[in-house]
Amino acid sequence: MATGTSELPELHPVLGFKLGTTSAGIKSADRPDLVVMEIAEGSSVAALFTKNAFCAAPVTVCKERLARCTPRYLVTNTGNANAGTGEQGLLDATQTCSALATLAGVEINTILPFSTGVIGELLPIDKLLAGLPDAFEQLSESGWTDAAQGILTTDTRAKGSSTQFGSDKPVTITGIAKGSGMIKPNMATMLAYVATDAVINEELLHRALTLATEKSFNRITVDSDTSTNDSVVLVATGASGVIIDEESFDSFLENLCQVFTDLAQAIIRDAEGSTKFVSVVVDTAINQSEALKVAYTIAESPLVKTALSASDPNWGRILAAIGRSGIEDLDVNDVQVLLNSVLIADHGARAPSYSEEAGQAAMQPEDIEIRVCLNRGDASEIVWTSDLTHEYVRINAEYRT
Amino acid sequence: MATGTSELPELHPVLGFKLGTTSAGIKSADRPDLVVMEIAEGSSVAALFTKNAFCAAPVTVCKERLARCTPRYLVTNTGNANAGTGEQGLLDATQTCSALATLAGVEINTILPFSTGVIGELLPIDKLLAGLPDAFEQLSESGWTDAAQGILTTDTRAKGSSTQFGSDKPVTITGIAKGSGMIKPNMATMLAYVATDAVINEELLHRALTLATEKSFNRITVDSDTSTNDSVVLVATGASGVIIDEESFDSFLENLCQVFTDLAQAIIRDAEGSTKFVSVVVDTAINQSEALKVAYTIAESPLVKTALSASDPNWGRILAAIGRSGIEDLDVNDVQVLLNSVLIADHGARAPSYSEEAGQAAMQPEDIEIRVCLNRGDASEIVWTSDLTHEYVRINAEYRT
Repeated sequence: MATGTSELPELHPVLGFKLGTTSAGIKSADRPDLVVMEIAEGSSVAALFTKNAFCAAPVTVCKERLARCTPRYLVTNTGNANAGTGEQGLLDATQTCSALATLAGVEINTILPFSTGVIGELLPIDKLLAGLPDAFEQLSESGWTDAAQGILTTDTRAKGSSTQFGSDKPVTITGIAKGSGMIKPNMATMLAYVATDAVINEELLHRALTLATEKSFNRITVDSDTSTNDSVVLVATGASGVIIDEESFDSFLENLCQVFTDLAQAIIRDAEGSTKFVSVVVDTAINQSEALKVAYTIAESPLVKTALSASDPNWGRILAAIGRSGIEDLDVNDVQVLLNSVLIADHGARAPSYSEEAGQAAMQPEDIEIRVCLNRGDASEIVWTSDLTHEYVRINAEYRT
Repeated sequence: MATGTSELPELHPVLGFKLGTTSAGIKSADRPDLVVMEIAEGSSVAALFTKNAFCAAPVTVCKERLARCTPRYLVTNTGNANAGTGEQGLLDATQTCSALATLAGVEINTILPFSTGVIGELLPIDKLLAGLPDAFEQLSESGWTDAAQGILTTDTRAKGSSTQFGSDKPVTITGIAKGSGMIKPNMATMLAYVATDAVINEELLHRALTLATEKSFNRITVDSDTSTNDSVVLVATGASGVIIDEESFDSFLENLCQVFTDLAQAIIRDAEGSTKFVSVVVDTAINQSEALKVAYTIAESPLVKTALSASDPNWGRILAAIGRSGIEDLDVNDVQVLLNSVLIADHGARAPSYSEEAGQAAMQPEDIEIRVCLNRGDASEIVWTSDLTHEYVRINAEYRT
């Protein structure tokens, strides 16, 4: 189950960034599961990784290498997360990179490995190594759509976004992402790769990545479970010749944020078992921190999420979630709650204007906005989430069987 | 679904504490839903309430009255929580107390009201008032079993515990509780009433209540949702003549803790849709706070809970939960995880001695212990929880329909 459209938009190629995808038999015989990406020399690269202390072996390797040099290749396998695999996991990640370095004729430290899939099982390294040459051979600037498929695990659809902006010399930004469970990214989602042909130095690129991630991948939750493998990589090849500096940064960031938000929302639309796409908006809070606390408490409440799955305007559960979110000196008499613009709760009780029929009607659409007005400040925040369904339980009870 | 036995143990009467139960037609025509309890004059009473900012009307009334005098009567209705009901909710709670005060010939401030059930709908006050005289007439020291039934909502079974201790003049402690969803008590569970015939002053009684609650009702979670109505009341009638002072306090507390823990665990055994009773033990932590953080992160992880429902030893999800629990400077190489005494993870990876068959076998029993050794200190904590099943989703999606 999923919400919204399953169609992938047109993904514009980014000059200087190539992708090659193959089926190495890691996930299942006929599904693409191995993706190599090539970054032109002279590009800038920025990346963010999970804050989970049990980070996967490839995340450890990536962090070490990024501190040393600018990457030239990214290699991603699905079907196995290479997480909780100890020393052997590090050896396997290194061996993968070593094989690709030989193929490409580059230094091993310029290769970043990524893995996603089941945690706690060793990487089927022989299959992976056997598949590398074919993935390498497929490298092409038009490889985005295949790669979007190749990075998926329990996802039911590929996720991508692409934009072009600027009048005389247009700049392109294109990205793909994967993820539909174990989603509460803490710096990045499961995996996302975004490239642009803008010219931008690594300091500015890192700033853009951090700001865009904060408002996109760091504002979604499916099940409050932060993955061990979350990674997002942003590449600027510079091929367009358009220079992004302090002056043009805001416009670049705006377009980047759009691509990031598209990808983050696509993950929620494909959340495991989901039938609703839910925007939790908290406004008139004292500060962003308290707005986020309330938004996440609602977005992660199993009781709110099951009510959403039943299209039940059970606003009492929303009030209860607000009440336990731990914000200081909350006067419940000031709180208002709206469901798709219908005022349902006011002054700590059902709004006088509210009727059960209006609430039922407001809950019918696939897209639901829960808006909470705290009426005590100017800060507002938004978090996107999905509902909790039988299908979520089925998928996650049967995942390894 | 539920785990363990559904049989209620023998509930010893407590001299000076009477209970009367009736069907007022609030919940459904033939189920008991209204309970009155009478506390003998001269008793000590202590109570703790939810920390949810959206606390229910009866909780507000209880807190005000407890500050003024020692209660003589408790009145509890189920089927309606009288929460999120604003001014009218306070009036309804007051009117309930006023009617009981007239019946009993006592001052209104000596009456404490309690409600549990659906949030956000007005109390059917006429039905409640009509039922009061019969409940009052039923008052009896042997009324525990009926009252244990009368306070239930989505619970599938009554919950009670009773103990007697001391050689020449025995002291009795008996209690009942209800709750099976919206359970992460923050000071107390949904509703619990415990009485003893010990002689104990209110200061010591409050200390005993706080300590026992901390290790029982404040160590359970079904769905991380703290209710608006959580209340626990502890009454000491003094009828046994046995005086509890500083010297005999520890022995009294030990017995009280046993009754409280029995009740808290009974709530988890009856957790909505549950098929597993799960003890999450975190030991060798630096302090209790970090032990609790890790324990609750595991106990509330939807991915761990769905794996439990499938009896799947998916220990990768447990590692991922430990890793995101936010404890400082965690060295994952020190962490060990055991499932029902089978070592499954060691040094950040699968234990060399572990086999999938051993893991599968360890997950079969109804009672599961997840033990995490952080190996960095002396503190340990335990949290009890249930699994996340299709049935949980069904119950909570259909709750109001």
